[in-house]
Amino acid sequence: MNSQSNQPKTLKELGEFGLINHLTINLKNKQSSTELGIGDDAAVIDYENRKTVITTDMLVEGVHFDMVFTPLKHLGYKAVVVNVSDIYAMNAQPRQITISLALSSKYTLEAIEELYAGFELAAEQYGVDIIGGDTTTSPNGLVISITAIGEAKEEQLVYRTGAKDKDLLVVSGDLGGAYMGLTLLQREKEVWKVNPNMQPDLDGNDYVLERQLKPEARKDVIQFLAQLGVKPTSMIDISDGLSSEIFHLCKESGVGCNLYEEKIPIDPTTHNVARSFDLDPTVCALSGGEDYELLFTISQNDYDKIKGNPHWTVIGHMRISFYLVVIILRNCKQQFVIFATT
Amino acid sequence: MNSQSNQPKTLKELGEFGLINHLTINLKNKQSSTELGIGDDAAVIDYENRKTVITTDMLVEGVHFDMVFTPLKHLGYKAVVVNVSDIYAMNAQPRQITISLALSSKYTLEAIEELYAGFELAAEQYGVDIIGGDTTTSPNGLVISITAIGEAKEEQLVYRTGAKDKDLLVVSGDLGGAYMGLTLLQREKEVWKVNPNMQPDLDGNDYVLERQLKPEARKDVIQFLAQLGVKPTSMIDISDGLSSEIFHLCKESGVGCNLYEEKIPIDPTTHNVARSFDLDPTVCALSGGEDYELLFTISQNDYDKIKGNPHWTVIGHMRISFYLVVIILRNCKQQFVIFATT
Repeated sequence: MNSQSNQPKTLKELGEFGLINHLTINLKNKQSSTELGIGDDAAVIDYENRKTVITTDMLVEGVHFDMVFTPLKHLGYKAVVVNVSDIYAMNAQPRQITISLALSSKYTLEAIEELYAGFELAAEQYGVDIIGGDTTTSPNGLVISITAIGEAKEEQLVYRTGAKDKDLLVVSGDLGGAYMGLTLLQREKEVWKVNPNMQPDLDGNDYVLERQLKPEARKDVIQFLAQLGVKPTSMIDISDGLSSEIFHLCKESGVGCNLYEEKIPIDPTTHNVARSFDLDPTVCALSGGEDYELLFTISQNDYDKIKGNPHWTVIGHMRISFYLVVIILRNCKQQFVIFATT
Repeated sequence: MNSQSNQPKTLKELGEFGLINHLTINLKNKQSSTELGIGDDAAVIDYENRKTVITTDMLVEGVHFDMVFTPLKHLGYKAVVVNVSDIYAMNAQPRQITISLALSSKYTLEAIEELYAGFELAAEQYGVDIIGGDTTTSPNGLVISITAIGEAKEEQLVYRTGAKDKDLLVVSGDLGGAYMGLTLLQREKEVWKVNPNMQPDLDGNDYVLERQLKPEARKDVIQFLAQLGVKPTSMIDISDGLSSEIFHLCKESGVGCNLYEEKIPIDPTTHNVARSFDLDPTVCALSGGEDYELLFTISQNDYDKIKGNPHWTVIGHMRISFYLVVIILRNCKQQFVIFATT
């Protein structure tokens, strides 16, 4: 504790408290609701009679990310994004996060600083304060567990339960890109395992790689909905893939859905990469996941307000029909039941 | 989703959503502040103008617990306890928790049900609602990450920063027991590894085993302080050991401390087990950790209010002296500096 040295230290020399102090010493709280951040048994926040919204996500090495092709700064950024995305999916504003890390001995201080730089960059981007966490050792690999706390006025909150018959189903951005980015990276990893001197062949695929490695949460969608005076009847973020998220909205709202394949927004790069792997781009969009776009339903009365937005696409409509989710295929006018719930 | 069967299923058959649903279907929210629990992108809580208090802790298999001697139900219970203990250490009331799990394939559905039974038992005991979480696979072992959310009126909150010169240092319960329980269990594990037919020799040591395997958070201390009209000037829970926690209080408050060895409360069982391992019971209390007792400072004016409580012990007093933490040894009147901070 008496050391005045500025030399980099090892993790062992720093110890748990030293590491936490080292990583968090420059954090500045910006949210007025953050009364007390890191440094006591718990953080204190004050929302002045607004609703508190809480979500949590865990990322595990070897399951959610592969250190062979995931830069640590990107990983830190993404770990924050997946959490704030859930807050936006409630039509709420993220304000604070806590970050818990389990680190194996293979991680150096420099590596953890990179990871933390990603956390801080995302905290800056999304305007959240890092108010606490836990740092511990792990026998194997890295585990990141983040809890995000947000706020909203009661009348702003959007649940999964409010979709009604004839409501329009809208999605932001485009789908399937993150999955194609992952598929590319996994292919290059296999090539690299056979020949470590091989340079990765990723040219021209920046878009899908960024969708996988540095996704963004759709803060802008929430802001724009508010500006337009449109409150969705239900909303969810796309972490597991379009079909899974539609299923959640339908099940929780007690409705079915007609989904039009030709309307599903897919970027040309995603389309080309999918074809190069002999995959159906629609299937990639339906099942790929990790796009972190927002999927929401609106009343038909609000259609005029949103139709001019080039970044939002109406891809279907809700229906009363035994919770059936039906996709209307592009080429053959055939219908195909994706889900049926009871 | 159409299955009406009541037969136990495997984890693979259930899938992530099936598992979450299976584990949480019977959860009932009891806190009036819990507006929405599990089932949407995020939970919603409403504290009506009181302060929100947040803390998080991560438990990693092979670091914080050893599956050879840790019953899963106890582990689930303890994982909740360590978090609510941090909320009490702010003089606040825990209200909600989120639970994230990373599970390797060695865990069966029955095992996870046991773990969850422990979460639920602790949630019942401490009056908290389980409002969300994340469940994922893990390549190796089990990771539990819990975030606890509490509430307090602003004037109730107690930080680590308020200890003043001459304040009395008080601890609840007794110390070193959890560490002695762990030491015993580790010894029996070594014996068992050599001879798996050997029965464990744990007779007469129930107290220290329970301190390790099923600790409790000191909800009663917070209640009793309120009844007595005593607000501590600083407070912390004992997770890392008495000396480490005194150090935190001193550093954050900018004071030093005189600690009297003879006053440190140690249960006779703890004392005997320590001696049987040739360990100094005082060192076990100072460095053992995991006792989850509360350590707090009070103004000398409040001494008359607390002195009759047989479960609280005054073990020292704060002093202005370059942040020195000094222990006054029992037998030789010698002083020994535990910490000096700058």
